[in-house]
Amino acid sequence: MAPHPFADLTSKEITRSRDLVQALHPRVLLSFKAITLEEPDKDRMVAFLKAEHTSGVNAVTSPPRIAYCAYYLRGTDNFHTAWVDLTSDTIVRKEQMGPGINGNADFAEVGEVEELVMQDSSVQAEIAKLNLPDHLEVIPEPWIFGSDGVDRPRLFQVYMFLRERGKPDYNHYAHPLSFSPIFDTNRKVVTAIEKLATGADHTVLETQPYKPTVPNDYVPESMELRTDLKDLNVFQPDGASFSVSEDRVLTWQKWEMRIGFNYREGLILRDVRYDGRPLFYRVSLSEMAVPYGDPRSPYHRKMAFDLGDVGAGMVANNLALGCDCLGAIKYLDGLVCDRDGSPVTMPNAVCIHEQDGGIGWKHTNYRTQRACVTRNRQLVLQQILTVSNYEYILAFVFNQAAELEYEVRATGILSTSAIDEGTEVDFGTVVHPGVLAAHHQHILSLRVDPALGSYEDGNRLVYQEAHPMPLDQFNPFGNGYRTVVTPVEKAAGLDLDSSKARVFMIQNDKIRNSVNNLPVAYKVQVPPMQPLIAHPNSAHFARAEFADHNIYVTKYRGNELFCGGQFTNQSKGGEGIKKWVSRGESVLDEDIVVWVQFGLNHVPRIEDFPVMPVEIIKVHLKPVNFFTKNPALDVPPSTQERNKSVLVKDAIKEDCCSKAPTYKL
Amino acid sequence: MAPHPFADLTSKEITRSRDLVQALHPRVLLSFKAITLEEPDKDRMVAFLKAEHTSGVNAVTSPPRIAYCAYYLRGTDNFHTAWVDLTSDTIVRKEQMGPGINGNADFAEVGEVEELVMQDSSVQAEIAKLNLPDHLEVIPEPWIFGSDGVDRPRLFQVYMFLRERGKPDYNHYAHPLSFSPIFDTNRKVVTAIEKLATGADHTVLETQPYKPTVPNDYVPESMELRTDLKDLNVFQPDGASFSVSEDRVLTWQKWEMRIGFNYREGLILRDVRYDGRPLFYRVSLSEMAVPYGDPRSPYHRKMAFDLGDVGAGMVANNLALGCDCLGAIKYLDGLVCDRDGSPVTMPNAVCIHEQDGGIGWKHTNYRTQRACVTRNRQLVLQQILTVSNYEYILAFVFNQAAELEYEVRATGILSTSAIDEGTEVDFGTVVHPGVLAAHHQHILSLRVDPALGSYEDGNRLVYQEAHPMPLDQFNPFGNGYRTVVTPVEKAAGLDLDSSKARVFMIQNDKIRNSVNNLPVAYKVQVPPMQPLIAHPNSAHFARAEFADHNIYVTKYRGNELFCGGQFTNQSKGGEGIKKWVSRGESVLDEDIVVWVQFGLNHVPRIEDFPVMPVEIIKVHLKPVNFFTKNPALDVPPSTQERNKSVLVKDAIKEDCCSKAPTYKL
Repeated sequence: MAPHPFADLTSKEITRSRDLVQALHPRVLLSFKAITLEEPDKDRMVAFLKAEHTSGVNAVTSPPRIAYCAYYLRGTDNFHTAWVDLTSDTIVRKEQMGPGINGNADFAEVGEVEELVMQDSSVQAEIAKLNLPDHLEVIPEPWIFGSDGVDRPRLFQVYMFLRERGKPDYNHYAHPLSFSPIFDTNRKVVTAIEKLATGADHTVLETQPYKPTVPNDYVPESMELRTDLKDLNVFQPDGASFSVSEDRVLTWQKWEMRIGFNYREGLILRDVRYDGRPLFYRVSLSEMAVPYGDPRSPYHRKMAFDLGDVGAGMVANNLALGCDCLGAIKYLDGLVCDRDGSPVTMPNAVCIHEQDGGIGWKHTNYRTQRACVTRNRQLVLQQILTVSNYEYILAFVFNQAAELEYEVRATGILSTSAIDEGTEVDFGTVVHPGVLAAHHQHILSLRVDPALGSYEDGNRLVYQEAHPMPLDQFNPFGNGYRTVVTPVEKAAGLDLDSSKARVFMIQNDKIRNSVNNLPVAYKVQVPPMQPLIAHPNSAHFARAEFADHNIYVTKYRGNELFCGGQFTNQSKGGEGIKKWVSRGESVLDEDIVVWVQFGLNHVPRIEDFPVMPVEIIKVHLKPVNFFTKNPALDVPPSTQERNKSVLVKDAIKEDCCSKAPTYKL
Repeated sequence: MAPHPFADLTSKEITRSRDLVQALHPRVLLSFKAITLEEPDKDRMVAFLKAEHTSGVNAVTSPPRIAYCAYYLRGTDNFHTAWVDLTSDTIVRKEQMGPGINGNADFAEVGEVEELVMQDSSVQAEIAKLNLPDHLEVIPEPWIFGSDGVDRPRLFQVYMFLRERGKPDYNHYAHPLSFSPIFDTNRKVVTAIEKLATGADHTVLETQPYKPTVPNDYVPESMELRTDLKDLNVFQPDGASFSVSEDRVLTWQKWEMRIGFNYREGLILRDVRYDGRPLFYRVSLSEMAVPYGDPRSPYHRKMAFDLGDVGAGMVANNLALGCDCLGAIKYLDGLVCDRDGSPVTMPNAVCIHEQDGGIGWKHTNYRTQRACVTRNRQLVLQQILTVSNYEYILAFVFNQAAELEYEVRATGILSTSAIDEGTEVDFGTVVHPGVLAAHHQHILSLRVDPALGSYEDGNRLVYQEAHPMPLDQFNPFGNGYRTVVTPVEKAAGLDLDSSKARVFMIQNDKIRNSVNNLPVAYKVQVPPMQPLIAHPNSAHFARAEFADHNIYVTKYRGNELFCGGQFTNQSKGGEGIKKWVSRGESVLDEDIVVWVQFGLNHVPRIEDFPVMPVEIIKVHLKPVNFFTKNPALDVPPSTQERNKSVLVKDAIKEDCCSKAPTYKL
């Protein structure tokens, strides 16, 4: 049986794609950056989905399966893309990229950079100046080079740290060095060693001999652990309430969707439905920008696009049973490719489990004292990214009230640099003696391709605000207020306005609620954020083009998935959301895409070091007049019979008031 | 042994207070509204706490225990307060309230209103006009009368609904009637029956004969329940990690505090400490205002102050094992008084339990692939309020990273009124045929009395903002940004500004972080809110005087606990936070109080009926440079050995990609 059009590429399909691409370049060694499913044509896919959910898939022809491939001629800056039609076994399109367009980093490359940098004699000479004691060694950490608008070859910026020899999990981020090699990936040479400022200004000094520093480790064997934490276990005696089919259709509590995974976005949800009604055609994280606020070189270039520069799927953690979730867990592997174009499994890249989300709804009738209460069971689809020092825990969380939440937990280790003792700066925080963590922003973009109520009707984005009524005969006492709903007519970037309780909603204007005649809708609850702080004329601003507004809306086009552009590594911008918005297309009752930006301005606290406690940000998608009552009304009541809680028996006596009568109403 | 100065009044103390107050009014029947602990004098208390935590309590004299009493001469508007010194067994102060000052509602009174309204012949005559079929009956729901600035006696506004006879838990809110008696609590008579508008304007009609309506129930027996939800149990095989002493000192994971409870605020935290260092002198919910946006009478007066008008402790749910929390639960009773001044137990008014809060922190070293991960264990102190139709689930949530969160879950049933079929209005949503739920705001105020690092140093409130650096030689590429910290000098109302990532912090400027020399601080993470929408000249605006700013800061005074004033029932405002701010006192390194306002503009969705899915709002208090590293670093790692998770074995085959090799770094 042919794979479903939304199924991830199989190992065989990856291998076949690689072989067909290789045949384009006989006797040339290639370095693959990506081999992944190209999104099927949406018109054909809509016909397919309609048939799938009604008459059956045999009623229509599947759209062809196409693999998107990106690769270098190895050892050159000769970067190509090619599209392989796996149905007809042919290359259907190919393109050689122009100058200044760079593929993402991959692990083979990063490993190579680490090795070659350390072998470089100028680097070794610099290290020699440290005059290190025997128990210490230098380790390199290659970073995406970033951009300040200047044309350069494909480079890595390599930050250098100290580590105690023989302790591979020593926290080297507590020991940053003040020089940084730059590595050219085509020529495979160190082209320069930048000296890093360690004071309050741009002044750089020659590398000085090592002075003793103190460690700041996070591995458990390095510290005395708390001993007073009792175990807490989650058991599901009858198993989990969800199921995942062979072709990764997830069903749970009236939800149904297809799970996808690729090297760039990691988890992808497609054809998300509730109780048989379509909600979203596709939902995924589109991009993330992490610009730093230290104005000094090379930090002025420091801005990670963790999806475009590396890939959420490429850095997905291998999630371990009992470590990253509690209860009954289902793991899914992801499939990516290596430098040679061979399929590579990312084991346990996604975990799926249920969790208790506290009370779901409750009401007590004060007359009868009868309480009706349910718990809010949630289904979590989680992936965890390690991008060098930082970690992102990314989860889609579904509940029984037909709500979908996207939760981001930022954790991991701050990116650090050296600072002279006693120096304070206003663009970073000293988090350890001699260690500065610069202020930075995390701005993420969630791409929501809605199909609210229908695959074909088109949707609109509106925003609802609460306005005071004027003080007049209708509102003589001044308490009155009303809601005003404004549809967005053309593709645009838009912002929250908490002073008006502005909330964005995706509506299907053609389907009306049977009770109140309002359009069926989902609202987007997104926390406010400080938009990108970088100057409007800066390279950062041009590159992170999605980071200036909470919401963007565009008209759908098939190849527009990544709001910061397809190729972000050393990019100059101009190939993402702003370009698409500038077409000025109508988005009123059209096939629209909504881009939800959110994040945080991370002004480091010392409490964020050596590993930061999770900082949690959530985006919620909630039905608004989509159903005719609380969709969770039919959740069985929360009872002791099912929940099996226990009373804590501790040493305390009965309360002094225990003999007083209870309240008689 | 004498009770701790912070201990709630005992049954005996309540009875003794009642007796001493009664002796002031021989042969007069009293109606008590409150008998509760008066906060001990802070200066003396600080001396006491210092001694308690160092040399022992015997080094100082306890402040006297004082009971605050509020009561009516029954059947009159003669309202009094009195303070009883329980140490010397004397009345130390008493006061007769002036006109227009009203005590809160109590259950005996509400029950009486319900009964007398239904006995009233004019009400019966109105009901007769409905010409009800036998299976239906009318039930009254007394509401706080509210105020529009006009002087009136103490009144209740009684809303009327239909219920199916013999079904006491039928959802009558789906059947609102269009007349509303007004009840005078002193004269004990119905003084008027207001007709309620049911169209889009102020027009009111005579009561019409009943037309059949459809039910919309929430009790489980009224619907078909989901059958595919598997049980999820939380077990703590070694018991809970917290303990509560006889005098309600709670200790858990380096946290220590005293738990208090009273009729008005419900849960109170006092002397909150972490790892032996003081953090907060007192934390509690101060008030909540729920103004409605329907401009028509009587809704123009509709604004509940759920603490001041009723009391969070008076309406605390009796929390049942297995229904309101999972796992190992400790319950605490609360003690209030009834109308006769007798002690009354509110059983299981507070529950305490641990929960798993997902991952606490994680880092994977990409070189070694070693993942270090902990879970974020949380301690929850929860109470649930039922205020007629609505429910509030209020919880203090502590974690191992020294963070304190205040979580509000709004649930329960919307306050409804009748609306003609086919009518739509912009100040409410039709949530059921013939049923309107008007827009309303919930604005809560959390009172934080800090003692950061010391009981005596004084604290300051500052706000930190992120500002772009100018484009100049220091910031040549325009990426630079800096933080600017502004101390608040005088008592004031202040707002968030997400465009600058403004965050408020409470600092102790006299205690500096030993590593980075920054003042120890806690930041207040509060979500933005639309301030009170009501017109600045309206009664609502005058009464909900705290509801216009996210943050207020005042200089501490002993009797200033309630930001909407001590007596909110039919209040006119002017006795709360704005009065205190207007003193213009310095709050720089003084004994300050920080008032945190938050909430939501509830534009009802049909999904919020008949019982709404929880809407969650959180305020976080997090350390900023208070410690020298992540305080949760010593949490034991999350391991399968302790967590005992299981793999979901479902019907799916091995993934197609399972034979591909895993990644070699």
